[in-house]
Amino acid sequence: MNLRRAIAERAGEFLLFAVTPPRLSTGADEAAEIGRVTLERLRQLPIDGLILYDIDDESDRNPEERPFPFLPTMDPAVYLDRDLADLELPAIVYRAVGKYPEDHLRSWLAGQDPSRTLTVFVGAASRNKPVLTTLPRAYELRNGTAPDLSLGGVAIPERHAENGEEHLRLISKQRAGCSFFVTQIVYDVNAAKDLVSDYLHGCAEQGLETVPLVFTFSVCGSLKTLEFLRWLGVNVPRWIENELRHADDTLDASYEQAVANATDLIAFCRRLGVPFGLNVESVSNRKIEIDASVRLAERLGSEFHR
Amino acid sequence: MNLRRAIAERAGEFLLFAVTPPRLSTGADEAAEIGRVTLERLRQLPIDGLILYDIDDESDRNPEERPFPFLPTMDPAVYLDRDLADLELPAIVYRAVGKYPEDHLRSWLAGQDPSRTLTVFVGAASRNKPVLTTLPRAYELRNGTAPDLSLGGVAIPERHAENGEEHLRLISKQRAGCSFFVTQIVYDVNAAKDLVSDYLHGCAEQGLETVPLVFTFSVCGSLKTLEFLRWLGVNVPRWIENELRHADDTLDASYEQAVANATDLIAFCRRLGVPFGLNVESVSNRKIEIDASVRLAERLGSEFHR
Repeated sequence: MNLRRAIAERAGEFLLFAVTPPRLSTGADEAAEIGRVTLERLRQLPIDGLILYDIDDESDRNPEERPFPFLPTMDPAVYLDRDLADLELPAIVYRAVGKYPEDHLRSWLAGQDPSRTLTVFVGAASRNKPVLTTLPRAYELRNGTAPDLSLGGVAIPERHAENGEEHLRLISKQRAGCSFFVTQIVYDVNAAKDLVSDYLHGCAEQGLETVPLVFTFSVCGSLKTLEFLRWLGVNVPRWIENELRHADDTLDASYEQAVANATDLIAFCRRLGVPFGLNVESVSNRKIEIDASVRLAERLGSEFHR
Repeated sequence: MNLRRAIAERAGEFLLFAVTPPRLSTGADEAAEIGRVTLERLRQLPIDGLILYDIDDESDRNPEERPFPFLPTMDPAVYLDRDLADLELPAIVYRAVGKYPEDHLRSWLAGQDPSRTLTVFVGAASRNKPVLTTLPRAYELRNGTAPDLSLGGVAIPERHAENGEEHLRLISKQRAGCSFFVTQIVYDVNAAKDLVSDYLHGCAEQGLETVPLVFTFSVCGSLKTLEFLRWLGVNVPRWIENELRHADDTLDASYEQAVANATDLIAFCRRLGVPFGLNVESVSNRKIEIDASVRLAERLGSEFHR
């Protein structure tokens, strides 16, 4: 499986795993050790690429108190170059474009090997945030500097549930150069189906082909993590929240739920003929939750037609 | 399968079919013929009881224009006595209690054989509507006059999605004498699961046993019927609406959707240990849609553990 080709040919059927870089305050030796352990963990997994998130302080997105404190993290591009140099898979490096001056972003784009790196541009979390580079400008930079670099966008089913226009946003990002989309964590399958369906019909109306939609899943090992998911804007349906709250083992229950949701979405996309991928991330950095994420990725890896 | 016992013992696993009585303007001969055809149709079905709806003019519930004109229908109790006398199954006679003077309702209740008749009380569709008997008063009448008559209530998942309190409403109806609940037509499985889950946990908190929840399904053969479902307050998720709109055969697509939704809810209720039943109705009176409803009931009848 060649990730770049699976995207370019709109075939989908690929599995990603996502990690957040270490905290910015992490010493060089410790970051190297985290990188080493991460690579070791990834080698066991049937994945086709590694997502590296770019964490922005999103406290202006949500006035509620953040359940986990915000701690700045390393630039994922730096982490990849320095501590994940032995990665044998393509990396999808997120770029919270508003954090970077134009020159910085341009030179990063120019320096990437498109057979090893892909990127996803993320806009500012709120309109009030001052940005160094806007999302439209970032698209221009990529199209001018590195048109061969596979570019993805973010898809948010919850936003579609609110305004019914997320599919149009995807289509306009696609016209700006995106060739795949990655959702935030999905617990509300119905909202995800609404987005997939409207995206499919929107593409058909505009004479476009659908590109792969990558659905992200996570486990949730505690009510604190559940609270954090909500803070991040993930809609956890009431019945799933009840199951997690009342489960003997919240982590196991969330694992089962993620498998059920993923298989439901897989069947849905196959029936509609919309290409898809899956992505597994661990929201928490507790070892038990990371281990469960690894098990989830192994489990979901068995669902693909290849 | 004895319906009354399956309800009293909170076992569930029963199938109902629902019909609307003929229009009030129907002549006696024609009504008799409709009754005869209905009984013939029911004889082929693996059902455990027949629901007879009591249609109220609900135009004050919804300010939008009604897609099908409202035409008053026969009193279901009269239709049962006169035209469905040969029914070999228990009948669940709906009573839109606001339509009836107290004396009328009391004498009807007193005249029923609890081994053959069950009832469901329905309150007024809007608060502004003048009522002859209120729902609380109807409960008093039944408890005083016919405490052995199985009494059901209406459950509306869409109302739960709006206010999160429908489960408390069910619990209070249960305390007033209801021993089962029938939903309006379910297209939004997620909303139904939310209600089931909150109802289960609400009962547990109050030390009550859950009683059977009967989920209603229908086919939808045209966009006009879809519009009518919406007018009735049924939430049809966006992706299901898209499927019905774009299907080569809307009726077939809605049939498949109803089967998928029912099996999903069945698995959910079994896992949670909440007793359930299923109910199939035809919203439209076109023969092709009625025939598809009959097929749907046959299909759903195969899902029970008996």
